[in-house]
Amino acid sequence: MPLSDIADQTCSVARALSVVGDAWTLMVVRELFLGSRRFDEFQTYTGASPHLLSQRLRALEASGVVERSAYQQRPLRHEYRLTEKGVSLWPLIVALREWGDRWEGAHRRETPPVRMTHRDCQGSIRARHVCEVCAAEVPPQEVKVVMSRAAVSARRAARAERKAPRRVRPAKR
Amino acid sequence: MPLSDIADQTCSVARALSVVGDAWTLMVVRELFLGSRRFDEFQTYTGASPHLLSQRLRALEASGVVERSAYQQRPLRHEYRLTEKGVSLWPLIVALREWGDRWEGAHRRETPPVRMTHRDCQGSIRARHVCEVCAAEVPPQEVKVVMSRAAVSARRAARAERKAPRRVRPAKR
Repeated sequence: MPLSDIADQTCSVARALSVVGDAWTLMVVRELFLGSRRFDEFQTYTGASPHLLSQRLRALEASGVVERSAYQQRPLRHEYRLTEKGVSLWPLIVALREWGDRWEGAHRRETPPVRMTHRDCQGSIRARHVCEVCAAEVPPQEVKVVMSRAAVSARRAARAERKAPRRVRPAKR
Repeated sequence: MPLSDIADQTCSVARALSVVGDAWTLMVVRELFLGSRRFDEFQTYTGASPHLLSQRLRALEASGVVERSAYQQRPLRHEYRLTEKGVSLWPLIVALREWGDRWEGAHRRETPPVRMTHRDCQGSIRARHVCEVCAAEVPPQEVKVVMSRAAVSARRAARAERKAPRRVRPAKR
């Protein structure tokens, strides 16, 4: 299956990855959250090549994660902002930062590069997974995954397909 | 900057992406959380080619996200499990699922493919970002990002580098 087809899986993780499952794309999203708006800033702070960067920005615009507007006419220059869909990627960036802090930074004996604080009271912010009924914080071990009928059938079909692959061409008569 | 160098940035998001900033890698991690253990299962449910899959599994093992153990000797067969480092990717998978549900699934008029519930009380589980001091749920607009000195210097150096790139070879005398 080519990567472009993962959007067709009956799985929201796969569908999300078809849009943002790429390191450079998420580096640009990080940068937008840090306040960068312009091509030049993305290039400076992500380290991506201009070619790579314009590709990613076009894709992000096409999928509605960023919107582009002109900030200068002669010569024409654009700036980029996160849409509402883009701002909803916040938990993803937070999850990457927390994981990176814990597992890819500890051996460096440094202060975590970025601390996220609550503007009002300066408290640190932490991601929690909370049960909407009992309000408990729930670790992955206590989570039950319930699949929809469509998801269960899709997985059954994937198993059947592996056992007896569809013929690509009809057999010769 | 090649992608392999983003681990050197003074940024935990970049460092995390250097390990898990890839769609197929995260599809394998999703599958591990759904209980798959074997190569054949990963292939069936992710749709990745065998070549791609062994590459990703090797990288995940090398970075300590999964561990491999033999479950059969003749012929030798391995199974894979998430390590503690791997299980800590849970918030990332949850963030992808929530975003995919909201932005890549709504137009499909279907039940979300997967619901995560609290095993004890069947309540739905939701990611929240909470201030550790005042316990308020904090949206990204109320977050203040505080960079460490090292992070600030790294960004200053990136700006200087863009203005006056380092010479790769010394000038001829």
